[in-house]
Amino acid sequence: MRFPSSLSSHSTQLVKKRTRMKVFAFVLIFCVSFISTTTSFEAKQQDPELPQCLHLCKQQQAYSETEKRECREMCKKESGDENPYVFEEKHFSTVMKSDHGEVQILQRFNHSLLKGIENFRLSVLVGNPRAFFSPAHWDAETVIFVAQGKGSISLVRPEKRESINIKCGDILHIPSGTTVYLINRDDNEKLIIIKLLHPVSTPGVVETFFGVGKESFFKAFSGELLEAAFKTQCSRVEKMFEGAGDSILEASEEQIRALSHHEEGGIWPFSESKGTINLFEQKPLKSNDYGELREVSPKEHRQLQDINIALAFINVTKGGMENPFYNSKSINIGVVNRGAGYLEMACPHLSSHSSSGGAPISYRKVNAHVKQGTVYIVPPDHPVIIVASKDQNLELVVFQINARDNKRFSLAGKNNIWKQLEKEAKELAFGRPSREVDQVAGKEDEDWFMKGPSQIPQDGAYIRMRTE
Amino acid sequence: MRFPSSLSSHSTQLVKKRTRMKVFAFVLIFCVSFISTTTSFEAKQQDPELPQCLHLCKQQQAYSETEKRECREMCKKESGDENPYVFEEKHFSTVMKSDHGEVQILQRFNHSLLKGIENFRLSVLVGNPRAFFSPAHWDAETVIFVAQGKGSISLVRPEKRESINIKCGDILHIPSGTTVYLINRDDNEKLIIIKLLHPVSTPGVVETFFGVGKESFFKAFSGELLEAAFKTQCSRVEKMFEGAGDSILEASEEQIRALSHHEEGGIWPFSESKGTINLFEQKPLKSNDYGELREVSPKEHRQLQDINIALAFINVTKGGMENPFYNSKSINIGVVNRGAGYLEMACPHLSSHSSSGGAPISYRKVNAHVKQGTVYIVPPDHPVIIVASKDQNLELVVFQINARDNKRFSLAGKNNIWKQLEKEAKELAFGRPSREVDQVAGKEDEDWFMKGPSQIPQDGAYIRMRTE
Amino acid sequence: MRFPSSLSSHSTQLVKKRTRMKVFAFVLIFCVSFISTTTSFEAKQQDPELPQCLHLCKQQQAYSETEKRECREMCKKESGDENPYVFEEKHFSTVMKSDHGEVQILQRFNHSLLKGIENFRLSVLVGNPRAFFSPAHWDAETVIFVAQGKGSISLVRPEKRESINIKCGDILHIPSGTTVYLINRDDNEKLIIIKLLHPVSTPGVVETFFGVGKESFFKAFSGELLEAAFKTQCSRVEKMFEGAGDSILEASEEQIRALSHHEEGGIWPFSESKGTINLFEQKPLKSNDYGELREVSPKEHRQLQDINIALAFINVTKGGMENPFYNSKSINIGVVNRGAGYLEMACPHLSSHSSSGGAPISYRKVNAHVKQGTVYIVPPDHPVIIVASKDQNLELVVFQINARDNKRFSLAGKNNIWKQLEKEAKELAFGRPSREVDQVAGKEDEDWFMKGPSQIPQDGAYIRMRTE
Repeated sequence: MRFPSSLSSHSTQLVKKRTRMKVFAFVLIFCVSFISTTTSFEAKQQDPELPQCLHLCKQQQAYSETEKRECREMCKKESGDENPYVFEEKHFSTVMKSDHGEVQILQRFNHSLLKGIENFRLSVLVGNPRAFFSPAHWDAETVIFVAQGKGSISLVRPEKRESINIKCGDILHIPSGTTVYLINRDDNEKLIIIKLLHPVSTPGVVETFFGVGKESFFKAFSGELLEAAFKTQCSRVEKMFEGAGDSILEASEEQIRALSHHEEGGIWPFSESKGTINLFEQKPLKSNDYGELREVSPKEHRQLQDINIALAFINVTKGGMENPFYNSKSINIGVVNRGAGYLEMACPHLSSHSSSGGAPISYRKVNAHVKQGTVYIVPPDHPVIIVASKDQNLELVVFQINARDNKRFSLAGKNNIWKQLEKEAKELAFGRPSREVDQVAGKEDEDWFMKGPSQIPQDGAYIRMRTE
Repeated sequence: MRFPSSLSSHSTQLVKKRTRMKVFAFVLIFCVSFISTTTSFEAKQQDPELPQCLHLCKQQQAYSETEKRECREMCKKESGDENPYVFEEKHFSTVMKSDHGEVQILQRFNHSLLKGIENFRLSVLVGNPRAFFSPAHWDAETVIFVAQGKGSISLVRPEKRESINIKCGDILHIPSGTTVYLINRDDNEKLIIIKLLHPVSTPGVVETFFGVGKESFFKAFSGELLEAAFKTQCSRVEKMFEGAGDSILEASEEQIRALSHHEEGGIWPFSESKGTINLFEQKPLKSNDYGELREVSPKEHRQLQDINIALAFINVTKGGMENPFYNSKSINIGVVNRGAGYLEMACPHLSSHSSSGGAPISYRKVNAHVKQGTVYIVPPDHPVIIVASKDQNLELVVFQINARDNKRFSLAGKNNIWKQLEKEAKELAFGRPSREVDQVAGKEDEDWFMKGPSQIPQDGAYIRMRTE
Repeated sequence: MRFPSSLSSHSTQLVKKRTRMKVFAFVLIFCVSFISTTTSFEAKQQDPELPQCLHLCKQQQAYSETEKRECREMCKKESGDENPYVFEEKHFSTVMKSDHGEVQILQRFNHSLLKGIENFRLSVLVGNPRAFFSPAHWDAETVIFVAQGKGSISLVRPEKRESINIKCGDILHIPSGTTVYLINRDDNEKLIIIKLLHPVSTPGVVETFFGVGKESFFKAFSGELLEAAFKTQCSRVEKMFEGAGDSILEASEEQIRALSHHEEGGIWPFSESKGTINLFEQKPLKSNDYGELREVSPKEHRQLQDINIALAFINVTKGGMENPFYNSKSINIGVVNRGAGYLEMACPHLSSHSSSGGAPISYRKVNAHVKQGTVYIVPPDHPVIIVASKDQNLELVVFQINARDNKRFSLAGKNNIWKQLEKEAKELAFGRPSREVDQVAGKEDEDWFMKGPSQIPQDGAYIRMRTE
């Protein structure tokens, strides 16, 4: 699994330029609006302002190549020719990093179409073999999924510590504010953990608090207070909490052994604990030659109830596809765990025809080629099709926000909803004998997963209006 | 019941003009502010900026009549001389329409005083005799109320279909994402359904998804994918899902018969269902010669619990009125189902005296003449009086948002709160012997509904400060 | 207890000036930004723009002294050299006031860092001996804490009235919309009540409705309607509800006696009531020579469950301190009830190093000298130290928002979290033998409260970056 990296310096730069860019964009849009009302432009499939905006970007002599690229991105965003549902490596930034691992966080979901998940954040932790992540706590309810490797995690609570071995497929809910430390207990394999964070303090903002390390929060306190709190000379307190400096360190083999002596798979030392759940050990909800779907839901697992999140693991066999379907209530955040594929979604919000004017609603295609590390969003009720590539299985980890009472509606395949219509309803809606409808809607025998298309469409990750 | 119509084209136009208007409004307000600080103006009962703003609208030579009207509306809005609590026909827009029926949606509740209901939408469906509404799903939890006629509704779920006959007074909670189709099973009468929608994806935005019809969401998908999903040539799939074209069609008498064979009134074919509730069949909470109040609340009806909404049906006899009262917790959205009347509300937010400066709080009158199709909002704790016209009963359907533990407080009539004050409290608060208080507060013998005023005040739907 | 007063006229003035100030601030910041990029400035510990901004304020010849002060405050706010977590007397404004008492409300929590409590308001009621607060209702769920004195409160509900004597330490949940009246039943002592309000209508806005008094809400209704509602001549209705005029009056000794005949401490006349809870009568959670902590939580007390608020009373003995700790989930609003002290908090949000760029997170010190009437906020997971002054105990009333499942984590003292780390985890994180860690982390024997520092830091209520 490749993860976003070396992007941090760029991000900082970007922030500095934002104000300047905004002013520019405003002027630009204003100019372009003026031009577009006075000239006739022939582009049919996209916003007519876009090419002109791009042209203006090109002409800015004073711009560096980076600034020109940012200008182009701004154009695409302003013209609506953007895909707010797909995130790549470049949308992550580094929270912490050392030679032994790193933690990255996906940008905020602050697009107007992502309001339903604006108070969630996605983060990925990568620990090299024998990495030790120093104790820290953070202000968010957290659900973790172990995407790769073997580790041992310790949750320090006011009254006790819980330590547990974790392995690939494990799910764990960590309450906000728990002090946590973690090791990768393997000598060779990386440990990869995907975290969904639900901040409890400031919506969409997660703050991490390190007591130990060169930036320990104890440094913010006055010496007099530290001296009183620890009955120890201030300089000695400070020196101790500076600790080993970094927050991601390397443990020795002996230390790993000592920190891994816990029972496997959810045997917790204290009665109140609810243990981990392993997603791979769930009975598949759907399974055939073309794919498999497993799920862990708040209905069965108490530790997911308050946060109301389900997790699904979907493995689409190479050459296969998931049937067109929609979720009734939950917003899904999918992460490609392994492999590659392609997705298409029908999206009314992005339609060029406004639905408010009485004109018929039309749906725009949102599509993306996805690969390991891609994050995608599927809003509730949006029909979506997910296809594996021809040569690799597509493995997806899906966080389902607002999971309680969510249902998946199948739009094709063995158990599709069209089959449930009464004969007369089929005749009326489809305007033809119901037997003709049955011929098409009833042809596919497979349930949920099915043989994929002979060819995957080639256009890119941006939205294209379909030519008809 | 008349419903807003033929407004859609205007709406679209309006959207286009909005940007231009905003810039204008800004300049206008700026100018007017300047003027109003340098001249002395005599208007006592309204914002002094308003007449000047209106005058400037009149002087804009380049404006069409429509633009001048919009300008005037903008003035009223900016000067605060508006009533954010009452909606008329013009505030609705058409979502879908054919010769056989239409669906209209009320504009968003995006006024700062309506924050408490900003994530709700109100919609009205009208089906002509034998109309068939094609299968669709939408991204909102929905509570429907059958305001007129007889229909049959089918709810398609992943594992089953539920079909049920509905009639005037029926209430039904439809979970988000359910695929629904519907007929008016009467040969003569229109079917009218009022829906309260609670979006699950983007706050305040409802999107409808049609699988079948000339704008089917399947059109957004690539041909290759459709071919794989249905094991059928792409063109044939597309043609089939284009179906009968429109989303509102007319069924034949035989089709109506076939689609109406379900049991009446909430006998559901599957065990998990909770059936409809009929509001008219509830025992009245209040009833006398002057009116009747019936209610269906989340306390007694499980299907209203999660959405925490109650529905009330109020019938004020012609010449009668509802006593002055307030709701302790719930925000009420009322719809006039039949008849005409008048309402007055005491409103502190709109008061010209700010309550933050230590000046005594004063209350402004919000009033409106209401008729069939008017929608009005009563925020929690706002005292309100509702009066029927002299010659027609006033029928109200009221959606009560945040209904759990709401209480209605009576401010006059047989069971008013003043009667509950201790003798000394009456003396202190009213500054006179408690017996004098009792003479006024205890005079009315009727509970809740009472004889109305001899004359209904004549001023219009806008707010007027009371002259004293 | 001193409470904010005589600030109302100033507030009103301030509102008027705000627009002007904003324009000024914008120009100022723009200028300063320009200057600061072209000159080199030596200030190390604060935003380089701040001194220049302050200098510009000084130079404004046209400014009055008040305007200059406001200008300086604006500079501090814009430069980030502000403390959004501490509120003083000047941040309150008067809601109502007479010779016999007053009600003040703290400004809205509208800072971006206070999003988690933006829909809460804090209010303080002070009643002189024998004060009577006239019946009123308001649109907020309310938790009251009696900070001083003895009173009697009456809650009027549609079906009954509940009257109860209250005394110092009592906690009561008043449902939104309840009509309430209140007396101070003592002849000498003031009655002081601290209220936490959770508005149910417009977020962050509380509106109070008075039926009786010179600004009665009945005045907003038309005479015709009042006449019909009370079957009494309109002028007589109006005159009666004008009542005694003021909303805070003085009762006679006889009236006090009559209104105080209720049972003490939570004996309620009706079965459904849940009574008051007295915070001082709770068994302390923590107690030693240096302080005491008592708590009332939603877990044990049903009336606090829906609103999910806990209350704590903390008494830090003079010369003592509370150990460094953090709350895992709840946001705390603390009010200094008596005494004086000092607090320090480690705050990542205000750090000058952005945490998003991959740079190490650092924490900024937020500190404040606090005294009777100071209100302070501690967000979840922020380490904080609270110290009593040398010569007075520090008494704190703390409202804990989002209290369910909140845990307090101790960072020093007998039961600190560092002691729970495994030996190897200590070695790794601290980079030294675990025995050395134990020497520092294990030195203090006291739990939670401990001996304070020999000297309290002298710098003021504003944030200073620590020099290292």
